[in-house]
Amino acid sequence: MKLCTYTAAGQTRTGIVVGDTVIDSGVPGTMIDLIRDWDALKPALEARAAEGGGVPLASVKLEAPIQRPGKIWAIGLNYADHIAESNMATPERQVWFTKAVTSINAPYDPIEIAKGTFTADYEVELVAVVGKGGKHVSEADAAGAIFGYCVGNDVTERMWQHAGPQWSLGKSFDTHAPIGPWIVTADEVGDPHALGLRCFVNGEKRQDSNSRHLVFNIWQQVEHLSTGMTLEPGDVIFTGTPGGVGAAMDPRQFLKAGDVVRCEIDRLGHIEGTMVAEG
Amino acid sequence: MKLCTYTAAGQTRTGIVVGDTVIDSGVPGTMIDLIRDWDALKPALEARAAEGGGVPLASVKLEAPIQRPGKIWAIGLNYADHIAESNMATPERQVWFTKAVTSINAPYDPIEIAKGTFTADYEVELVAVVGKGGKHVSEADAAGAIFGYCVGNDVTERMWQHAGPQWSLGKSFDTHAPIGPWIVTADEVGDPHALGLRCFVNGEKRQDSNSRHLVFNIWQQVEHLSTGMTLEPGDVIFTGTPGGVGAAMDPRQFLKAGDVVRCEIDRLGHIEGTMVAEG
Repeated sequence: MKLCTYTAAGQTRTGIVVGDTVIDSGVPGTMIDLIRDWDALKPALEARAAEGGGVPLASVKLEAPIQRPGKIWAIGLNYADHIAESNMATPERQVWFTKAVTSINAPYDPIEIAKGTFTADYEVELVAVVGKGGKHVSEADAAGAIFGYCVGNDVTERMWQHAGPQWSLGKSFDTHAPIGPWIVTADEVGDPHALGLRCFVNGEKRQDSNSRHLVFNIWQQVEHLSTGMTLEPGDVIFTGTPGGVGAAMDPRQFLKAGDVVRCEIDRLGHIEGTMVAEG
Repeated sequence: MKLCTYTAAGQTRTGIVVGDTVIDSGVPGTMIDLIRDWDALKPALEARAAEGGGVPLASVKLEAPIQRPGKIWAIGLNYADHIAESNMATPERQVWFTKAVTSINAPYDPIEIAKGTFTADYEVELVAVVGKGGKHVSEADAAGAIFGYCVGNDVTERMWQHAGPQWSLGKSFDTHAPIGPWIVTADEVGDPHALGLRCFVNGEKRQDSNSRHLVFNIWQQVEHLSTGMTLEPGDVIFTGTPGGVGAAMDPRQFLKAGDVVRCEIDRLGHIEGTMVAEG
């Protein structure tokens, strides 16, 4: 099933995407509430999807499927080609940073270049959305902790990322975590480690890889994160970006106002945002 | 005014602390709702505090004043003596990491030593609670963005902090962000850069400094954080720890089950937790 958060007639709610239509889920609350009650809600939502009768997707505004997650974690240096272009060694241990929840952005909304900055960069990433979550989730059990997947752009202010030793603040600027366009539930995705992912800037392909090349796969990521920290329904995990970021090009290419950044992943769809100077 | 979140008769609500009593604030919702509406609520709450009629503090359970902030940011290497004991250089630029919101802990609750770990450490810190917040808040305007202050213990799993280049995950274990015992509003604190802060382990003083020794003061912190990121009501800022952490002792001293960690700050009170092995 494909589940979205959308606004129509001034109201924001969750919906089921069927073809090019969206059907109101009828479930009160946010996507996180829906995820929390998924086992109980699933049969009714499947019936609702089968009935049809949705409105055209083009007639609504898609929001980030999870507008306010409890936490956003992102793994660094997790594709061999990105590690090489970053002139870093392959880490023996997973390297995690965070993105602030206030950086969440709708899938087709503009992405801001903050006042006084000029080194914004894209990073297409497969995003895992936590379902049951938990603590001490083993690699073997990790698939059961994940609800579904969507496309993410780990937009990064490179100067702020690298001006000091800690990356999180340079990863946390407003609008710098566009995700969507909807969540595809894990059962419909199948193997999340066999998905092609690509990023285009103004139509030019910049990143093109496959999640089979993850250094640490998603199950290992869930095990590592949950060693000391409880993962909760709706938590968001950015699983790493492949090579091809603008900061590694020769000469370096950073995003400018007017640039259109499109991120797409097999079976999940695409998100696309236009860079704008912060007003 | 002193504002707390407390549980009594199975209900969790916000309250006003007057002497050794707590008065139900009567405000529906969480502390964040109260902070958001503070300008409108303040006169009524002052009147309520003047009336008295509270119940003994000892008869209720104090919770973390903010149980689920939107974000928690913490600055590293922000007291000269802690920088020296860490064998680090004084950073020219502020160094920020995060603590997961799931690490929040009540002020007198046990603090867990996670399964399989043995390098938990304490860090007493003055915690600033965001009020109006905002973006592009200048150093000159920063005081107006802060609601109040409380005591925090930036509990740290040192092995996880230093096993890789990024600190946030080792700072984010469950129960590792005890804060409290209540928020003292900024007007009652006066100058936040003149507060003594101390940490004791089993009664032995381990940290003893004053917020006047902050390398980057709180106003500079607010300006830096809000350059690209919107600060929201109830966001939590750990402003740095002074020297004396266990990891810097000779020989190193980490926290063991049964250890009692007390953090206290002038005008704000104290929090105290017993270390327990994760069940």
